[in-house]
Amino acid sequence: MELLHNERVDDLQRGGLRLIQRTDGFRFGTDAVLLSDFASPRRHDCVCDLGTGTGVIPLLLYGREPTITADAVEIQPDMAEMASRSMTMNALEDRIRVKTGDLRQIRELLPAARYDLVVCNPPYGKAGGTLLNPDESKRLARHEETCGISDVMAAAAWLLHTGGRFCCVFPAPRLLELTDSARACKLEPKRLRMVHSFSGRAAHLCLLETMRDARPGLTVEPPLVIYDAEGVYSTEMRHIYGME
Amino acid sequence: MELLHNERVDDLQRGGLRLIQRTDGFRFGTDAVLLSDFASPRRHDCVCDLGTGTGVIPLLLYGREPTITADAVEIQPDMAEMASRSMTMNALEDRIRVKTGDLRQIRELLPAARYDLVVCNPPYGKAGGTLLNPDESKRLARHEETCGISDVMAAAAWLLHTGGRFCCVFPAPRLLELTDSARACKLEPKRLRMVHSFSGRAAHLCLLETMRDARPGLTVEPPLVIYDAEGVYSTEMRHIYGME
Repeated sequence: MELLHNERVDDLQRGGLRLIQRTDGFRFGTDAVLLSDFASPRRHDCVCDLGTGTGVIPLLLYGREPTITADAVEIQPDMAEMASRSMTMNALEDRIRVKTGDLRQIRELLPAARYDLVVCNPPYGKAGGTLLNPDESKRLARHEETCGISDVMAAAAWLLHTGGRFCCVFPAPRLLELTDSARACKLEPKRLRMVHSFSGRAAHLCLLETMRDARPGLTVEPPLVIYDAEGVYSTEMRHIYGME
Repeated sequence: MELLHNERVDDLQRGGLRLIQRTDGFRFGTDAVLLSDFASPRRHDCVCDLGTGTGVIPLLLYGREPTITADAVEIQPDMAEMASRSMTMNALEDRIRVKTGDLRQIRELLPAARYDLVVCNPPYGKAGGTLLNPDESKRLARHEETCGISDVMAAAAWLLHTGGRFCCVFPAPRLLELTDSARACKLEPKRLRMVHSFSGRAAHLCLLETMRDARPGLTVEPPLVIYDAEGVYSTEMRHIYGME
């Protein structure tokens, strides 16, 4: 497997799965790991990851449930090409297909009502709300310049059949913006988990599962606490990371 | 102090405050205590409690912050009369005024934009959604027959000045119904706390603070866990109940 000069291969610590990442670009973080755990794909789920970046999320989902098939959409051609090479490196190119495209044009990319599970680790910063990172790939991955959460919801609603699930991770202070966007697209919030760095601190992230055309009624799961102490992962985080 | 034959006096374990309750009617529960703690009134707050029942919430708020003054609205005349006697028993009749009236007619009962803090422990059951309790006062206190959460929000919005706070407790599965109703009345959700019976269980209640005319942005506080084990209150609950 040929790597570009600014690329490296990381071991995902899941069944030997490996991921190509750029040494100078956006690399996956805790939120991708948390989302993959929260989404917990079911057997034979047909999955779509919107804004897949390196492709880490479909790989982590496959690591949890090797019966899934997935389509992964990425707007940046060089990132999509790198993600494709990661799938080939893992001999998963038939199972996880990377598509270059804009999720705002989802209808031209992927079929309607075909998917059981759609996931997205969306850009967090509000367009224009924070300083943009000068590096292009980091900027597109972290900011809502290319699309906003309502574009993501509209794409998810297109892809999912009735009863299909959309799972995402988002800043906790913007929880209601997330749920509003979801409901506007007939994605009903069904399961919510707050993520706290430490047990005594306000949540910084939330994990939300919505269901296409479902009736209202939300299960607020026990919170996820990341650290027991500075630099010490909680037992659950160690479990999620596959450390124990 | 004269009591009716079906009444008793309970000590609130807060600065000698006492409360008259009916032995055969609705008695205050954990949710009133949690809401009083969560609302944490500020010095000299002008407070209104919507659907006060026995009057327990204004008494608990006064127990926390004796500089407040409060109006308490109750639709059932006999309940309002009993609450009034509780205020007199505590020599607080000038500080906590009980009004008999329907919160759907709040404009005829209390002045607009005068209050710093409005609280409500609203009826939980959806109208017609569950079996009604045959006892009238329990039924009115627990069910949304007399008013729904949007009536409560409209009343709170009338009472609060810009920047004033509305705090309530509600079933966690209906969180989004609560936040939707609030926003429809220009009460922006600002602070949320989930309440779990046990640390590993889904939340059954949520505590929400909204602010009149505020900008979006929600703080999701650390969750409140009620029990450490069956029948054993958590340290925080013991603190809230004034046990330690």
